[in-house]
Amino acid sequence: MKIALGQINPTVGDFSRNAAKIIQFALQARSAGAGLILFPELAVSGYPPLDLVERPSFVVRSRATVERIAAETQGIAVICGLVTPAEADSGKKAMNSAALLREGRIDFIQSKMLLPTYDVFDEMRNFAPAKSQQLFSFGGKQMALTICEDAWNDKRFWNRRLYRVDPVEELVRAGGNFVLNISASPFWLGKRELRRDMLTAIAQNQKVPVAMVNQVGGNDSLVFDGSSLVIAPDGEVIAQAKSFEEDLIYFDSEKLDSQKISGDMHPQTVGEEASAYEALVLGTRDYVHKCGFERAIIGLSGGIDSALTASIAADALGSENVIGVGMPGPYSSRGSIDDARELASNLKIRFELLSINEIYEAARQTLAPVFAAMPQDVAEENIQSRARGLLLMAMSNKLGALVLSTGNKSELAVGYCTLYGDMVGGLAVISDVPKALVYRLSAYVNSRRKVIPEATIEKPPSAELGPDQKDSDSLPPYDVLDAILEDYVEESCSAEQIARSHNFDLDLVRRVIRMVERSEYKRQQAAPGIKISAKAFGYGRRFPIAAKSEA
Amino acid sequence: MKIALGQINPTVGDFSRNAAKIIQFALQARSAGAGLILFPELAVSGYPPLDLVERPSFVVRSRATVERIAAETQGIAVICGLVTPAEADSGKKAMNSAALLREGRIDFIQSKMLLPTYDVFDEMRNFAPAKSQQLFSFGGKQMALTICEDAWNDKRFWNRRLYRVDPVEELVRAGGNFVLNISASPFWLGKRELRRDMLTAIAQNQKVPVAMVNQVGGNDSLVFDGSSLVIAPDGEVIAQAKSFEEDLIYFDSEKLDSQKISGDMHPQTVGEEASAYEALVLGTRDYVHKCGFERAIIGLSGGIDSALTASIAADALGSENVIGVGMPGPYSSRGSIDDARELASNLKIRFELLSINEIYEAARQTLAPVFAAMPQDVAEENIQSRARGLLLMAMSNKLGALVLSTGNKSELAVGYCTLYGDMVGGLAVISDVPKALVYRLSAYVNSRRKVIPEATIEKPPSAELGPDQKDSDSLPPYDVLDAILEDYVEESCSAEQIARSHNFDLDLVRRVIRMVERSEYKRQQAAPGIKISAKAFGYGRRFPIAAKSEA
Repeated sequence: MKIALGQINPTVGDFSRNAAKIIQFALQARSAGAGLILFPELAVSGYPPLDLVERPSFVVRSRATVERIAAETQGIAVICGLVTPAEADSGKKAMNSAALLREGRIDFIQSKMLLPTYDVFDEMRNFAPAKSQQLFSFGGKQMALTICEDAWNDKRFWNRRLYRVDPVEELVRAGGNFVLNISASPFWLGKRELRRDMLTAIAQNQKVPVAMVNQVGGNDSLVFDGSSLVIAPDGEVIAQAKSFEEDLIYFDSEKLDSQKISGDMHPQTVGEEASAYEALVLGTRDYVHKCGFERAIIGLSGGIDSALTASIAADALGSENVIGVGMPGPYSSRGSIDDARELASNLKIRFELLSINEIYEAARQTLAPVFAAMPQDVAEENIQSRARGLLLMAMSNKLGALVLSTGNKSELAVGYCTLYGDMVGGLAVISDVPKALVYRLSAYVNSRRKVIPEATIEKPPSAELGPDQKDSDSLPPYDVLDAILEDYVEESCSAEQIARSHNFDLDLVRRVIRMVERSEYKRQQAAPGIKISAKAFGYGRRFPIAAKSEA
Repeated sequence: MKIALGQINPTVGDFSRNAAKIIQFALQARSAGAGLILFPELAVSGYPPLDLVERPSFVVRSRATVERIAAETQGIAVICGLVTPAEADSGKKAMNSAALLREGRIDFIQSKMLLPTYDVFDEMRNFAPAKSQQLFSFGGKQMALTICEDAWNDKRFWNRRLYRVDPVEELVRAGGNFVLNISASPFWLGKRELRRDMLTAIAQNQKVPVAMVNQVGGNDSLVFDGSSLVIAPDGEVIAQAKSFEEDLIYFDSEKLDSQKISGDMHPQTVGEEASAYEALVLGTRDYVHKCGFERAIIGLSGGIDSALTASIAADALGSENVIGVGMPGPYSSRGSIDDARELASNLKIRFELLSINEIYEAARQTLAPVFAAMPQDVAEENIQSRARGLLLMAMSNKLGALVLSTGNKSELAVGYCTLYGDMVGGLAVISDVPKALVYRLSAYVNSRRKVIPEATIEKPPSAELGPDQKDSDSLPPYDVLDAILEDYVEESCSAEQIARSHNFDLDLVRRVIRMVERSEYKRQQAAPGIKISAKAFGYGRRFPIAAKSEA
């Protein structure tokens, strides 16, 4: 039988648009002769709905939408994700479920067994787990229908498992001979390779084919990469969908070994830089559009962070929808403005030049009675940065365009950024990109077409908020900083471990850790950023503000 | 036997300070002849530690601290909360545990069975639950040692339970005849009464005494009210500790019926206004001090929100540590500045007057080439608000004082506030106080001592960002708005339910709901606020930004 995977990009809460998309894909698959089509986890509502599932109306609309989809897709069986009401004694309002729609009605429902509750996932907060699971028969197969995390606990694959049961193994033991997995599995670097290896291990270990359909698209901080897969029992990939785009692929459930590949093999994005860049482009495009905007505004400093951000924005929204703003101040170099202008010209985006000097001087004069004879310090630096924030937000309000902020992960980690200044914006595009990766992504951008000026790449990083200021005046070299941050933020290493393993000065490591901990208040007021690492700042990393530092 | 409850105010992560406090209280209780003292949940680390518990060093330090406490408190048994390592196959790194320290060593450990994972609680994220529970013998009693949520599932008390097991009932069934509960149970309006009623029901239903010690103090958004209690099997309170302060109380475990009260009965705060006000004062004081600040800065508009915030700050930090800043702009009324100045004078706080006109004019001139002939709109209003934000932050940077923002819950709900403008600050003191309660709390303040000017209370609310602007130009009357918001935010009602139950116009209700949903992006960049309601914005309410509105 011909089976389709409908790799769609839903919008959270937009039931009618999501349903229209599901119906359109299903009817196309029916026309192509498919007997079954799979859609992602919570396809009807979009993932993650967060606390929306606690609104009774959300559960009701989810069910009604699925019933409508069933009625409008007769002639092809449809599997799609939805929220369903939880049992009264579960303590929760909803379950994360998959429905089989057949002949105009809901024929079978299986809810999710394993509810991820770590990093960006809060499913134990919002859902009750399924108490049990069943198989269903389809096209002569005993189908094991699982939802995302249900497939992430194979004891032969993981050194350290998160759960004591393996829903896939249990269904196969009960006679399942075909594993279906509907997912909303977000991207981060290395995740697609891990996911593929893990699904391959399941197919080989359980000796069953595995078909996984993944959500695609950006929803707030998360980017779902799609990259849906079908894997034969011998571990060969026999069908795959594109990365970072909607896609509809087919495979034949009777031709499932690598000698007789019958499935679509669409190209997936290869390479760390290309994957990160495409994730950032998709995340930016979807955030801007799903928030109801067409256009974006970016402050261009002449530096590499804003250059990379502008390049991502131009690819995401089209050059005609991006406005770059150069905002020279008392300590800006001539070169910086030239570099910003050249970048804008290369990207073919509109460029505006607005000096902050008048606002800066007005603020200093206004504050003179209070500041009196106190020496110039970080207060004056931040006034410059906040004057820029004020100008960007005023343009945003007047022109109806979303501000994209340009800070990188290394800066955000140590608080080398100004709250309400360079941090203003609706989306912090590269806030999960460490400085070293900013350089690599910029090189990737220029390898396609030279848009980022050489001077932008080569000059030493500077905030240009004081005379001859360089980032290296306040921070260790970025390669040292990034190494400390990776060990501290992603690996939870102690200062002693980090100093020892890199042969770094322990006091330096402690100083960096204290900077990270003391900047928590800034990060809690930061715009959402696009997650591309295993541990991004934001929703998936929760630390107290008013706490004593460990270092 | 004389038993003590050590109601302490720990700082998250400050093991040495928390240990010093625990030791000091224990030695004082030992001197008073007590044989046992109880400290709150996670007393050693402070609650909530959030993802800090995933740092291996945090678990190690927790254990080492408890061992030191055991060594230094010989002669009195101590029960205190700490994190302990979770079993390897649990998928988590830590458990939320209670240790009995006796004769210099850890004698018994019981971990928490029920892990709250809703609203502000994320315990299933951070902890593995205990697999089983045991009693321990002490002073001739079979002690049932429980941790906070473990006592919140009595089937005769709750209409709808969150868990299928009741750890208290199971321990009593196993022979427990004295229930100990160590808590970190945060304050919200009505919570203390609920907690007391619930503990009373347990004592009566299980026919056992219940002694509950609660954490006190503010940690980020949460205020713990203390209000520790001992309840006799007949349901009478036989000992109680103060609300909103550290306290050390004693009771006699052999004199546990209401006819022979032997315990301390310290007065607890009575009344909704007094409770809310004291919670806000404590939350503000602890946030400012635990973040390492002494002083606070508040923009004073002459309106009631900033007046209430300044009064709270003066009570929290001392008048000498609060700076009020009047920042008149082009649309400020003369009366507003007079009212602000009078408030500052009444509160005996420093007052500075800084006009925003120069910054506003400089910004308008700078933007003129871009704004060209476009009509004046919200962009110009926000420039005024952001000029104020810039001035407050500059003073904060220069003077080393924390900015307290002054927006109320009603405004924050519908987005009637300017991101990076009036929303700037380290703590949003009254962001969980609806406008109607702002008036009631202001009346409460003035009932103690008349500090808020009559004109501030009586004039119609206005942001004064346009000519003759009133809040009522953009918003429904606050009593209507607050009614809609309460039903929508706290009760998850649909637009139709709200319109029907209040006889409100459905379109109006829908408009308000859309305003709430569309302001999510502002709230996600708001400063943390002090939670005083069952459902505050912030950490305990998680909604997507780029989502379709329901209304």
